[in-house]
Amino acid sequence: MITRMSTLFLRTLREDPVDAEVPSHQLLVRAGYVRRAAPGIYSWLPLGYRVLRNVERIVREEMDAIGAQEVHFPALLPREPYEATGRWTEYGDNLFRLKDRKGGDYLLGPTHEEMFTLLVKDICSSYKSLPLALYQIQTKYRDEARPRAGILRGREFVMKDSYSFDIDDAGLDASYLRHRKAYIRIFDRLGLNYVIVAATSGAMGGSASEEFLADSEVGEDTYVRSPGGYAANVEAVTTPVPAALPFDDAPAAHVEDTPDTPTIDTLVAVSNERFPRADRPWTGADTLKNLIVMLRLPDGTREPLAIGLPGDREVDMKRLEAQVSPAEVEPFTEQDFAANPALVKGYIGPGVLGSENASKIRYLLDPRIVPGTRWITGADANGRHVYDLTAGRDFTGDGVIEAAEIRDGDPAPDGSGPLSLARGIEMGHIFQLGRKYADALDLQVLDQNGKRVTVTMGSYGVGVSRAVAAVAENSHDDKGLIWPRELAPADVHVVIAGKGAEIVGAAEDLAAQLDAAGVRVMLDDRNASPGVKFTDAELIGVPTILVVGRGVATGVLELKDRRTGTSQEIAVDQAVDTITALVGA
Amino acid sequence: MITRMSTLFLRTLREDPVDAEVPSHQLLVRAGYVRRAAPGIYSWLPLGYRVLRNVERIVREEMDAIGAQEVHFPALLPREPYEATGRWTEYGDNLFRLKDRKGGDYLLGPTHEEMFTLLVKDICSSYKSLPLALYQIQTKYRDEARPRAGILRGREFVMKDSYSFDIDDAGLDASYLRHRKAYIRIFDRLGLNYVIVAATSGAMGGSASEEFLADSEVGEDTYVRSPGGYAANVEAVTTPVPAALPFDDAPAAHVEDTPDTPTIDTLVAVSNERFPRADRPWTGADTLKNLIVMLRLPDGTREPLAIGLPGDREVDMKRLEAQVSPAEVEPFTEQDFAANPALVKGYIGPGVLGSENASKIRYLLDPRIVPGTRWITGADANGRHVYDLTAGRDFTGDGVIEAAEIRDGDPAPDGSGPLSLARGIEMGHIFQLGRKYADALDLQVLDQNGKRVTVTMGSYGVGVSRAVAAVAENSHDDKGLIWPRELAPADVHVVIAGKGAEIVGAAEDLAAQLDAAGVRVMLDDRNASPGVKFTDAELIGVPTILVVGRGVATGVLELKDRRTGTSQEIAVDQAVDTITALVGA
Repeated sequence: MITRMSTLFLRTLREDPVDAEVPSHQLLVRAGYVRRAAPGIYSWLPLGYRVLRNVERIVREEMDAIGAQEVHFPALLPREPYEATGRWTEYGDNLFRLKDRKGGDYLLGPTHEEMFTLLVKDICSSYKSLPLALYQIQTKYRDEARPRAGILRGREFVMKDSYSFDIDDAGLDASYLRHRKAYIRIFDRLGLNYVIVAATSGAMGGSASEEFLADSEVGEDTYVRSPGGYAANVEAVTTPVPAALPFDDAPAAHVEDTPDTPTIDTLVAVSNERFPRADRPWTGADTLKNLIVMLRLPDGTREPLAIGLPGDREVDMKRLEAQVSPAEVEPFTEQDFAANPALVKGYIGPGVLGSENASKIRYLLDPRIVPGTRWITGADANGRHVYDLTAGRDFTGDGVIEAAEIRDGDPAPDGSGPLSLARGIEMGHIFQLGRKYADALDLQVLDQNGKRVTVTMGSYGVGVSRAVAAVAENSHDDKGLIWPRELAPADVHVVIAGKGAEIVGAAEDLAAQLDAAGVRVMLDDRNASPGVKFTDAELIGVPTILVVGRGVATGVLELKDRRTGTSQEIAVDQAVDTITALVGA
Repeated sequence: MITRMSTLFLRTLREDPVDAEVPSHQLLVRAGYVRRAAPGIYSWLPLGYRVLRNVERIVREEMDAIGAQEVHFPALLPREPYEATGRWTEYGDNLFRLKDRKGGDYLLGPTHEEMFTLLVKDICSSYKSLPLALYQIQTKYRDEARPRAGILRGREFVMKDSYSFDIDDAGLDASYLRHRKAYIRIFDRLGLNYVIVAATSGAMGGSASEEFLADSEVGEDTYVRSPGGYAANVEAVTTPVPAALPFDDAPAAHVEDTPDTPTIDTLVAVSNERFPRADRPWTGADTLKNLIVMLRLPDGTREPLAIGLPGDREVDMKRLEAQVSPAEVEPFTEQDFAANPALVKGYIGPGVLGSENASKIRYLLDPRIVPGTRWITGADANGRHVYDLTAGRDFTGDGVIEAAEIRDGDPAPDGSGPLSLARGIEMGHIFQLGRKYADALDLQVLDQNGKRVTVTMGSYGVGVSRAVAAVAENSHDDKGLIWPRELAPADVHVVIAGKGAEIVGAAEDLAAQLDAAGVRVMLDDRNASPGVKFTDAELIGVPTILVVGRGVATGVLELKDRRTGTSQEIAVDQAVDTITALVGA
């Protein structure tokens, strides 16, 4: 295939588009791969669509290789199955809903667990049909509150979603592992730097769950790693729980006036000066901060939630959201305070939140707040704090919550050392759904003994359109994109660097020979200066660039490697062999 | 590739599904190609998706061959561009509309003229970028009032739509012809029996327009052909206009009591008995029938329309709809009659409809009603008709309308002989949009003289998912589907007809050898009787069936041609060569 730039539907831009903040978005727009059609909704131009289809091909090959069978569901789906599993409501505003001309309720599919479950129920009736793995590569929809970074987080996007169906847990484990291996091959072929981390399963339900994150500073996911090999999405990290302390000899709690302590630091300083601990100085980690938020439940009602945590840590909203999902977190407003006069803003303590008190607000504690720990905390009165308030003696919560931020240096939950934080782009997610959907939609088959048993399922996703952006994030420089060969829109970019008939003729001849050898050629045959052509070639990011210029007169061409920037002279009569070997065509 | 039926996600059905009325729908469901997800919305199972992708491949190859460039637009589209061209309203109930979480208006794209026009406006600024042809293979949405026949007329479907952009009319003609030739190759490769007919352009606007119709009794389109080669969609047929007649000597119009003439036949009989014509008997073609309908305009308002036509012809609703589109046709109700007391039901005549009368109803006449023609028609009074009412002398209409039915034997408009009627499935539509969209969205480029000129466009569609059903309609028998090889889910269906190790071993060995030779093999390795396997093989419709049975003992296999039903014995050791040659692998 020869792609002639003189007729290619392409306009490269020298400036970054104003709405693009991350490099992949800037470069994919500038190099003419995608264009914005609406917020979070993009059109694919010829070069971009080629790369997208290359990703699809890799994903398809690896899914076929593990025996998964390709099907294709509609994107426009009826409400009923999603009603049966509760997701019609649980998805909240993230779901695009619409009505047809008869008033029937429909949605644009965000994922297809329900539809796959119902189809398998329709087709399979015996254990003999299992194990089964089905997949589709399909356009999906989520009405993101904050679509961002171009195709990295869009509202219409392409995903590969697959589902496994097994008769028992051992089968599910095997299906899960098969997908895990396939995903490793997929992300290896995509040339991504990625890490596999433990994950929560969020709104999906289920148990074992891992994410494949592409390393990227612009990623929305934060994950942790330890020297001993622990890796987890920050939402999934659990806090090592300290041992409970004896509190028989602990001093009694006492309320003190603490004026002029607007921050944790000032409170700690005043406390050490006026109410010192006997054993060691107070630190921020000895203060107990109580934060109140409002949860919006899927049915639209609001419910307050109080979170107690050490004062030297902030609440991590994504960790909190993962814990309370499908409820959404909203601020506790001035009106909410006005409606709960017992809550003294800035001085809320276990006194008003404790389970036997009148506020009736659910009160969840950080895992570090174990029995015997002694705290400085609000005394539910302006300008007053309570000291030596002892967990398990003076207060308890209604439960535990993992909502505090994770910090560099925090201990890994498995004892494998201190955690370090990094950011990544979620590229894949594999998880064991178990029987949640099969139960909700009554998917049973007959087992070897003729007994009806509920099928257990796994759910596996790859962000196909997102992969195009993630690879661009992982692989670019200040001049432009640098595609791995399997994804690139062409194998070699032939630049005609001159106007003479000899140069043009040689380039055309080489392009034709390369094409005949199965090499995908981009031929810059435009009426433009060599400078413009070189700039565009680097922006577009085809891995190999062949410059056909004045050297033709002496039988010499220039072959450049886009990634390393190195170039070498090669003889005209060896160019086809050299490039064919390089490409592996 | 070897597809093992023992693990294939497939359940064939012996009975037709209750909601399936046409053979393609019955067979595609029974053979496990598609399953209904909602009215007019289907899921593709593994075999069906393979066929769909084969159609896509053929379409893609032929589009690429004419230099069209593949892009991909979103299906979820913002309202604004469709508002600019009026189609947000014109599409009426056929458009799926929805709102996002911020209340913004969106639609699910039925076609993408607007988006392509805007993208080209964004990318191209000079005549040097033209001619340009872009295409996409994409999921589209129309909220059909009557989805039917499975994937033949669905509400979510796959289309290839392409658009050409040219600087002038000659360029558009050339682009149109390139697409026309590509479509001929596509439909030839699909193995369809089809006809190319002149068409109206409907809601799309524009001028030259042709449809590719697959011959089929279950088709929704009626078309005509003449012995001299004229072919047109019935909506596009024009009526040869007779010459006007002199009426200086025509008798004066006279109103008569005509009791007991409830039908055209009784009116003609009474007329010939009591008020005979001097020159020849009255016939039904001399009566003038006036039908009143209500038009619902895109803005929701209703407007009456009167149609005058010879009494021996009915109004063809599809022809009428094509004429009044984007307005929709609704009945003129009893309430409407009550609101227009001058209209005497059953006796409505030009007296009340004529342009100078009080009803102010727009009155359009059949083209046959030329000046000088003499008519028997309603006298706007119960039980009374007017005779010798002469067009051009006694009445005129507000214009002409092509709404009367076309009949077998009617003359072709180009004089090429009598028309015969047939039915077909619309598979493709090519038309010259002209400057409608470019004007509405301001798509201009600089011409050779640096002057801004408006681009002229063509629009071209292929029903990709519909093609799967149309081919099934064109190519099946009472046993099942019969796929052309390019579309078939496999090249050869190997039936293991026996349980002995020798038979199974020979079949597995042949499957492996065929696979290695590049032949796509379906291998029926299920634990089922040969009868069940033969039935399923015929239902599924792979073009070549290889039966591996007891003959293996003597080195003999049976090779069946699914289409002809013929079978031949072949030697085991020649099977791979024979089949490879057959397949062209």
